[in-house]
Amino acid sequence: MSLLMDNQFNELPPDKSLDTKTFLDNVSHLPAFFDCLGSKVFSVIKSDINGNITKIRAVYVTDPAKYTTLQDILVAEREAHGAEWPKVGATLALMWLKRGLRFIQILLQSLADGDRDENNPNLIRVNVTKAYEQALKRYHGWIVQKIFHAALLAAPYRSNFLKALSKGEEVKEEDCLINVRQFLVNYTVTVDTIYEMYTNLNAELDYTV
Amino acid sequence: MSLLMDNQFNELPPDKSLDTKTFLDNVSHLPAFFDCLGSKVFSVIKSDINGNITKIRAVYVTDPAKYTTLQDILVAEREAHGAEWPKVGATLALMWLKRGLRFIQILLQSLADGDRDENNPNLIRVNVTKAYEQALKRYHGWIVQKIFHAALLAAPYRSNFLKALSKGEEVKEEDCLINVRQFLVNYTVTVDTIYEMYTNLNAELDYTV
Ligand SMILES: CCCCCCCCCCCCC/C=C/[C@@H](O)[C@H](CO[C@@H]1O[C@H](CO)[C@H](O)[C@H](OS(=O)(=O)O)[C@H]1O)NC(=O)CCCCCCCCCCC
Ligand SMILES: CCCCCCCCCCCCC/C=C/[C@@H](O)[C@H](CO[C@@H]1O[C@H](CO)[C@H](O)[C@H](OS(=O)(=O)O)[C@H]1O)NC(=O)CCCCCCCCCCC
Repeated sequence: MSLLMDNQFNELPPDKSLDTKTFLDNVSHLPAFFDCLGSKVFSVIKSDINGNITKIRAVYVTDPAKYTTLQDILVAEREAHGAEWPKVGATLALMWLKRGLRFIQILLQSLADGDRDENNPNLIRVNVTKAYEQALKRYHGWIVQKIFHAALLAAPYRSNFLKALSKGEEVKEEDCLINVRQFLVNYTVTVDTIYEMYTNLNAELDYTV
Repeated sequence: MSLLMDNQFNELPPDKSLDTKTFLDNVSHLPAFFDCLGSKVFSVIKSDINGNITKIRAVYVTDPAKYTTLQDILVAEREAHGAEWPKVGATLALMWLKRGLRFIQILLQSLADGDRDENNPNLIRVNVTKAYEQALKRYHGWIVQKIFHAALLAAPYRSNFLKALSKGEEVKEEDCLINVRQFLVNYTVTVDTIYEMYTNLNAELDYTV
């Protein structure tokens, strides 16, 4: 019935460990989120994120018992790769994936909070820009930032975006936002916990592309 | 010794039939061309083109005897897909791939012909723009055109580009251009022949992305 409600993230256990299989299952539905943006332009981003997920899964399946949690993967790769780490393997893939997840989180939160451009109430450019600035901009050089600004023009109308999140069903905007808020509960905790793990393991990098 | 000289296209036979296996072998080296452009931005284009090649190969390997020539593939898909054709399968993949090949052809030809911006002789923007306008622009909506203009700023200097085509060896510009001209001989005939086939089979589309 709704892209978000059908694919809620699981609640984390009390120790906030991130089960790899659960995470991969939850996150596998998210690339479809970029189809809700409507334009072919965003398929590029969808494949970048799909690539991250594929890379993490490829490591996981080599030894599911060894890689039970996401932290197990980072720690094992730190051992295995020496000075190359963290710019390597599933550690790098998850480093970028979490930024895409954060982008989605802030965009949805901003919509749920009712941020809008009063002069253009049916545009989501303010919400997309807020998400971009907080999640991604600092990791992009000036040319990719320019490309973002061009791509922003392809962002859909708020009404069409909310409809797409509801898989094309005509739902009231307020009902859709209730779903968004519900989705954000476990999702936000998961994304925050991945960020904390990168800080704790000193695995974050800030090079630009 | 040189990306182009090591990977010349084969000469076409007198009947100008396009052998599928030969074509796939020849073209498989071309995505590396986009690495010569230097910036991470172009990896997006590289994967689009890689995707086209993968799709054509996937059809070919299901029945190499049936799909001996590229024309065999188009004709078989026309039979199989009815009204959906030509916006389907390897026919669609080759339709887009040929545009990327034409882009490369015109860019290299323009360099070989000595087209340059006299005020910025070490930039290749005039050459890239010429190739874009002739090969791709009409298939791109205004947003992708804007993205192209932003991406153009990431184009490398002429000297670095020619050096990359020579796999990093310091060769004289004139020697590199001799290689480019040599490469263009069979390459141009191949690309022209694919375009003729699309015209003859009425397989060309002009929708924009
Ligand atoms: C013909 C004309 C066209 C000309 C060519 C134009 C090409 C334009 C391409 C622009 C860039 C597209 C976005 C992709 C950016 C990516 O470069 C970055 C880094 O990507 C990472 O790079 C790593 C190595 O450094 C590894 O390879 C990672 O891969 S690994 O798995 O192998 O480790 C990979 O994800 N990802 C990102 O920045 C992530 C982006 C996430 C989502 C962003 C949402 C934005 C929504 C915007 C809405 C308005
Ligand atoms: C976070 C911030 C970033 C925000 C997001 C930014 C995203 C920017 C993305 C811009 C577009 C990148 C270029 C890709 C364009 C592609 O959309 C098109 C059509 O692509 C085709 O589409 C078909 C369906 O219609 C099939 O899927 C084909 O696939 S199929 O195999 O499945 O049938 C596929 O190739 N290919 C093209 O236009 C081909 C391009 C070829 C080469 C161009 C060389 C240009 C060099 C430029 C040098 C300066």
